[in-house]
Amino acid sequence: MGFQAPESLSEQIAQYIGRQIILGQLRPLERIQELKLARDLNVSRGSVREALLILQARHLVAIYPRRGAVVAGFCAHQADSLYDIYVHLLTMLVCRFAERWAPEDLVTVQAQLQRLSHCLADDSASAEQIMEAGFALMRSCYKAVANPYLEEALESYRPAVSRAYYLTLQHQRPESAPALRFYNGLLDAVRERNLEQVRQLVRDYGHYQLELVLQAIRTVESEAQAREA
Amino acid sequence: MGFQAPESLSEQIAQYIGRQIILGQLRPLERIQELKLARDLNVSRGSVREALLILQARHLVAIYPRRGAVVAGFCAHQADSLYDIYVHLLTMLVCRFAERWAPEDLVTVQAQLQRLSHCLADDSASAEQIMEAGFALMRSCYKAVANPYLEEALESYRPAVSRAYYLTLQHQRPESAPALRFYNGLLDAVRERNLEQVRQLVRDYGHYQLELVLQAIRTVESEAQAREA
Repeated sequence: MGFQAPESLSEQIAQYIGRQIILGQLRPLERIQELKLARDLNVSRGSVREALLILQARHLVAIYPRRGAVVAGFCAHQADSLYDIYVHLLTMLVCRFAERWAPEDLVTVQAQLQRLSHCLADDSASAEQIMEAGFALMRSCYKAVANPYLEEALESYRPAVSRAYYLTLQHQRPESAPALRFYNGLLDAVRERNLEQVRQLVRDYGHYQLELVLQAIRTVESEAQAREA
Repeated sequence: MGFQAPESLSEQIAQYIGRQIILGQLRPLERIQELKLARDLNVSRGSVREALLILQARHLVAIYPRRGAVVAGFCAHQADSLYDIYVHLLTMLVCRFAERWAPEDLVTVQAQLQRLSHCLADDSASAEQIMEAGFALMRSCYKAVANPYLEEALESYRPAVSRAYYLTLQHQRPESAPALRFYNGLLDAVRERNLEQVRQLVRDYGHYQLELVLQAIRTVESEAQAREA
């Protein structure tokens, strides 16, 4: 854990708005009104602008010069693009970890995997708890890999990936068996430093996750069309 | 080309400071004083803060809560980490391009490669011209690949990669023969949609480039030690 500096005001505002976007309370392409937000939260317009820049870097907001900020869109093509780069970077992380782990790193990762397995097997665990346990597992690889650029990039996609995951959960709670199979197979491949197997597993599981997201997007779109008809 | 909205004030400030960092006029870890900058440029402190957030996203500045901003460091480990992720993403770009190109995309890319070849063969071309021609070649793949997240990530590393490239140029002008061989070999692999060959070529050329950067960093460090002795 260690000491963490309290977050800046703009970071707090970014987390507040970001959460609403992730949970779908703010809809794709909805306008974000700087002035109204500043009034509602009783903060300066400058702080709101900084928060929007932070959210842009987290792929939750798009800012257009002189037209202001909107909630980032999330169509099938965007989901496809997001998962393509995210899965590439996750593959890079796990491959580097497989190359570089020392025995103590493997202990930390195994402990996080156990936590995640408990979450997945526990029907009372919330979506947020499962997601956090998954990201905690990813983060437990950071120290051995020691690439600050890679960490930053993975963290920057985390909010958008969370948003996609919440969207799928609104339609169905995913089965835990494929996830458990994937993580345990991956741990074996990492232990054997089998990079080819790591690549294959992460790619296949990424495709499976993307397929769930695309199904959810199609459902949302056909529901919207049904309402209009 | 097309219509481009004029840049915001914070973007203009970011480009002004960013250029000084890339050219090495602002040194690694040098403090950036918000208030002094705002006074010198006759702009608001808010605009400077926004510019620093933009530069943080471009990996040229590090911002620490309550300690302010400094020019991002650039040691051997950072160069190694930067090139590792940049080469991974470039590989992803070229592989996706190799899978997806239509004949007209290949024409555009060939035209950009010809420009770059002229630059490389021309002793009077400046470092900036060579670098810009290289990035223009990379960008000519964007349309066919159509992944906005990947474009954004590659663009976000461009300033830090430019900074590394300028550092090497202060020590020696790189030979143009290896670059020409690499680009022409890569074009062949792309034309044949040979992904394994694409991966191999981009990885090898990435290692070669990184080695030049690491040599330059070692030279800078030993010069600094000699001055202190």
